[in-house]
Amino acid sequence: MSRSIDLAVIPGDGIGQEVVAQGLKVLNAVLPQDVKLETKEYDLGAQRWHRTGETLPDAELEALKGHDAILLGAIGDPSVPSGVLERGLLLKLRFAFDHFINLRPSKLFPNTATPLAGRPDIDFVVVREGTEGPYTGNGGSLRTGTPAEVATEVSVNTAYGVERVVRDAFERAAARPRKKLTLVHKNNVLVYAGHLWKNTFDKVAAEYPQVSTDYLHVDAATIFFVTQPERFDVIVTDNLFGDILTDLAAAVTGGIGLAASGNINPTGAFPSMFEPVHGSAPDIAGQGKADPTATVLSVALLLRHLGYEAEAVRIEDAVSADLAERDGATTRTTDEIGDALAVRV
Amino acid sequence: MSRSIDLAVIPGDGIGQEVVAQGLKVLNAVLPQDVKLETKEYDLGAQRWHRTGETLPDAELEALKGHDAILLGAIGDPSVPSGVLERGLLLKLRFAFDHFINLRPSKLFPNTATPLAGRPDIDFVVVREGTEGPYTGNGGSLRTGTPAEVATEVSVNTAYGVERVVRDAFERAAARPRKKLTLVHKNNVLVYAGHLWKNTFDKVAAEYPQVSTDYLHVDAATIFFVTQPERFDVIVTDNLFGDILTDLAAAVTGGIGLAASGNINPTGAFPSMFEPVHGSAPDIAGQGKADPTATVLSVALLLRHLGYEAEAVRIEDAVSADLAERDGATTRTTDEIGDALAVRV
Ligand SMILES: CC(C)[C@H](C(=O)O)[C@@H](O)C(=O)O
Ligand SMILES: CC(C)[C@H](C(=O)O)[C@@H](O)C(=O)O
Repeated sequence: MSRSIDLAVIPGDGIGQEVVAQGLKVLNAVLPQDVKLETKEYDLGAQRWHRTGETLPDAELEALKGHDAILLGAIGDPSVPSGVLERGLLLKLRFAFDHFINLRPSKLFPNTATPLAGRPDIDFVVVREGTEGPYTGNGGSLRTGTPAEVATEVSVNTAYGVERVVRDAFERAAARPRKKLTLVHKNNVLVYAGHLWKNTFDKVAAEYPQVSTDYLHVDAATIFFVTQPERFDVIVTDNLFGDILTDLAAAVTGGIGLAASGNINPTGAFPSMFEPVHGSAPDIAGQGKADPTATVLSVALLLRHLGYEAEAVRIEDAVSADLAERDGATTRTTDEIGDALAVRV
Repeated sequence: MSRSIDLAVIPGDGIGQEVVAQGLKVLNAVLPQDVKLETKEYDLGAQRWHRTGETLPDAELEALKGHDAILLGAIGDPSVPSGVLERGLLLKLRFAFDHFINLRPSKLFPNTATPLAGRPDIDFVVVREGTEGPYTGNGGSLRTGTPAEVATEVSVNTAYGVERVVRDAFERAAARPRKKLTLVHKNNVLVYAGHLWKNTFDKVAAEYPQVSTDYLHVDAATIFFVTQPERFDVIVTDNLFGDILTDLAAAVTGGIGLAASGNINPTGAFPSMFEPVHGSAPDIAGQGKADPTATVLSVALLLRHLGYEAEAVRIEDAVSADLAERDGATTRTTDEIGDALAVRV
């Protein structure tokens, strides 16, 4: 394990700046004295685009490559046309750095609100594929804007891409107490991609006899997310299904304010990127109202990825303890929550 | 309005036969004396496929065309490879009869269980596109079964197909008290299809100034389904997103046992098909345990489609009243529920 961390920070838009500041505060607090943390901020997002028309210039992409990891706050603003920053910045990073593991843990922490009656015991992790499926940007439109328009979106799935994420998910499942892995797809309709996913899953499963497996269609999976979420341990799924399921997972585990994520390249060939699942929430930006917990939990994922397991666990325990003691009546500012977590770790 | 109904009935597999019997019982009970009901049963589904290898032969497709409407129970059995009956029968019917409106109402009836705390007031309808998107079967696989396999699924979207479903949804929204229509897509990632959907939606919206409109990404929509479902009135969406959202909607409104659906061709060029959203549930088949309510509600949609509005409302009111009086302690058989509803209408 390296005793220094060279971190790129992309605060981004809206509440991004505020939550990232708390993430860094907790990171500084948890790191052992002898670990040298260096951070470099990158000015990317809506303001930059308005100013220069740039989303992610090559020089900055190149520079980002040199860091050990990236911490991102939030990107997006209603003033930017839909798709510009998503494709030009967020997805560009995932693709350029081959972030084929999009890791999204879901846990119902003590004392947090869930819309579900009966407070089921939720503790699962979604391993979402990050570089293929309908996210590749393949497709196009013909006779655009006319009554004869045809627009296509192509979901691209390769044995190479599917196998590596499926293997990663089996590894993660094997390392957890319950050792259970569920594949989610829609192989009764999307038969070509579905066969590839299912066959790959079954093939790799043979190498992990200790992991129990399960298959669900994506529509059925959403039902279980609300009626029986405790049945899930690790879920592996396609890029788009993973996008949908992880927002739903965040909702049932107390909201998007607590959902962390990692865009991971486990080979280490490129830096991995960690970010809260939530967006830039321009309506509450700059008011100290944003909950930085999802960012702090993303820092835990970052530390785990870089080999600082004990520190990651300390952050997660601090969040648990903090949530257990939060009382609904007092609202704390972004800064106060960050301080409380920094003290606890 | 014709004073006769020539109905094709496809009981199908598992609990299909049982629930369809109750649907027909209620249909017979609700129809005015002078309406002549003729039914013809079609033997299609898993057993037929095992016996003959056929899913939907041309002759039967041709014969089905001659009916006023189709009532379907449930199709599918674990003994049939995934995709065979879905593509070869269910989707074949939707495509052959150009069922471009897949109508799925969601209502939280009195006294029914919802996994959501606080019992929100849920009463919305999803207008799911039924003939395009990733369901077209376009796509394929190359070097199948090798480490170099590439499998694609193509989502096909046309101005023709999108505009007709969007118009239908605006009509339905305009006819409801709240007059609100939400478009659900993922236009920040699926930019080609997303633009076509959004532009068409905005264009048609200009003709319906009385309808208030809204746009949500599909991932965000799943959050609102569990945190704020009362915000929805009518939703219009793509075939795959509609598939996912309507299972989730069924789950939050008391389960798939109550969810009805219509595969509708509003032009009348082909018969429309009505079916419960649930599957064939082979584990409880033949035991009189299936709840036929979703099928009975599908019969109401069928009647409404054929112009029997008063009769449709009578069925829906009967279901409401029946559910309001159900007590959790006594379980009734499929037959008993059917009888109770037949008496009420
Ligand atoms: C902003 C968008 C491109 C992104 C996605 O669809 O992956 C987001 O929804 C997420 O889940 O990280
Ligand atoms: C069985 C399957 C083909 C079907 C679909 O995906 O449309 C089902 O899930 C539904 O929603 O009617």
